[in-house]
Amino acid sequence: MIRLLLIGIGTGNPDHLTRAAVKAMNEADLILLPRKGDAKSDLIDLRRAICAQVLTGPTRIVEFDMPVRAVEPAYLDAVAAWHNAIADRWMEQAALHLPGGGTLALLVWGDPSLYDSSLRIAARLGGQISIRVIPGITSIQALTAAHGICLNRLAEPVLITTGRRLRDDGWLAGVDDIVVMLDGHCAFRTLPPEGIHIWWGAYLGMDCEELAEGPLSETGPSIIERRAALRERHGWIMDVYLLRRAGFN
Amino acid sequence: MIRLLLIGIGTGNPDHLTRAAVKAMNEADLILLPRKGDAKSDLIDLRRAICAQVLTGPTRIVEFDMPVRAVEPAYLDAVAAWHNAIADRWMEQAALHLPGGGTLALLVWGDPSLYDSSLRIAARLGGQISIRVIPGITSIQALTAAHGICLNRLAEPVLITTGRRLRDDGWLAGVDDIVVMLDGHCAFRTLPPEGIHIWWGAYLGMDCEELAEGPLSETGPSIIERRAALRERHGWIMDVYLLRRAGFN
Ligand SMILES: C[S@@+](CC[C@H](N)C(=O)[O-])C[C@H]1O[C@@H](n2cnc3c(N)ncnc32)[C@H](O)[C@@H]1O
Ligand SMILES: C[S@@+](CC[C@H](N)C(=O)[O-])C[C@H]1O[C@@H](n2cnc3c(N)ncnc32)[C@H](O)[C@@H]1O
Repeated sequence: MIRLLLIGIGTGNPDHLTRAAVKAMNEADLILLPRKGDAKSDLIDLRRAICAQVLTGPTRIVEFDMPVRAVEPAYLDAVAAWHNAIADRWMEQAALHLPGGGTLALLVWGDPSLYDSSLRIAARLGGQISIRVIPGITSIQALTAAHGICLNRLAEPVLITTGRRLRDDGWLAGVDDIVVMLDGHCAFRTLPPEGIHIWWGAYLGMDCEELAEGPLSETGPSIIERRAALRERHGWIMDVYLLRRAGFN
Repeated sequence: MIRLLLIGIGTGNPDHLTRAAVKAMNEADLILLPRKGDAKSDLIDLRRAICAQVLTGPTRIVEFDMPVRAVEPAYLDAVAAWHNAIADRWMEQAALHLPGGGTLALLVWGDPSLYDSSLRIAARLGGQISIRVIPGITSIQALTAAHGICLNRLAEPVLITTGRRLRDDGWLAGVDDIVVMLDGHCAFRTLPPEGIHIWWGAYLGMDCEELAEGPLSETGPSIIERRAALRERHGWIMDVYLLRRAGFN
């Protein structure tokens, strides 16, 4: 029997780790570190560094190559096939390194509940494993903390969405605050910028953290440029932003 | 000059503390613990226990009584007056215990950005202080981790709102997933329950954590009863839930 720990590690700052995450890492017999190709090697380096800092016992660390996602028109089918392939990879590694069963841990970026597929992948393994989730600091909290701002206005709602959905759906009626994640194309540029304020952050929690803030009409265009330059420089970028409509307090 | 640290401490489990929170607590010259009256004394006890566990240096801990919020029809005015009174209380304590300036810390429940007023209160102090926020695990993440579920569906948005807004606005068009916080009256009962699933949690992260999950039509009524009994037993309750409309994966 395999016990799977999905451990949220925060978004790049090793000090985002909770005490529960440190304990869970040390409870694990095996920690799997996925290799995702060269461009994002910073991200596996960070996981290696975290392991080196916090492990005090006999936990083994094994790296494995992530399967590559097919680029197909049928997005949901491609994702399903990819999730199956990842689940297979996890179980291969478990069979190899934990033949008698044991505790297997994965270090999940941010929090495992937020735009992350580990839980969905684990669900495919059904009765073969038991699952425990250890929450982690999300990139949304890293964003609001870095700017020293509230996520919501006093007793008001907030929407969390993706770049694609912001572009396709526009500004949802009934909310004045929107967090946008997974946005490779600066979807904010599809909005009429009047009366909107943006708080933006990239590489949050990391040494190379970048922040910008201001009226969308002025700050939006400069973020577009800066983002392109940063992606060029680092080979990858992760960014998130909060949009707030006029009247904010 | 006063340096103010707003430190997210998670929602009741001392192991929610991040390494950054532990460091920040130890950097503080003074930690203020607000007393909110008898009913919620569990919450100050928890903060005392956290301080006892993690402080290793000369940080002083001082308790003070929170001002009481006026019960007025003009909700926003009453809140503003109350925030002013709290800001005054913080500065009184700082003047008393840090006459030469220094680092003052507040231990904020969950994450300081989410339905918490510390940042708004601190903003009233303007140039008198500098502010740093240390993010913490929110009750939303404690909820999804306890249930082992994702917050969002694959690449889909999620709304975070309050009980009052859910009751007043109904189900917002364009989202299928809604998190409800600050709900003293089980606002889910104002929705037609067909096709809605609920994941509910109270006292998340604490020893007395309570969970329930199921179709809203069946689980809703039992949560209403259980919640009343729990509130009676403990003298207070904090709960949060996720509502997901049919077709979830
Ligand atoms: C696949 S999702 C994972 C989110 C993660 N589970 C969390 O809790 O934040 C990746 C998206 O999260 C956001 N993100 C994650 N880490 C980030 C960081 N360090 N800085 C800025 N945005 C980040 C970006 O919007 C990115 O497109
Ligand atoms: C004033 S808000 C503070 C939220 C906090 N800053 C956070 O990050 O979760 C209080 C609301 O948070 C939720 N909450 C906070 N702690 C909780 C807990 N331990 N269990 C369940 N709900 C909790 C409840 O909805 C409660 O009404």
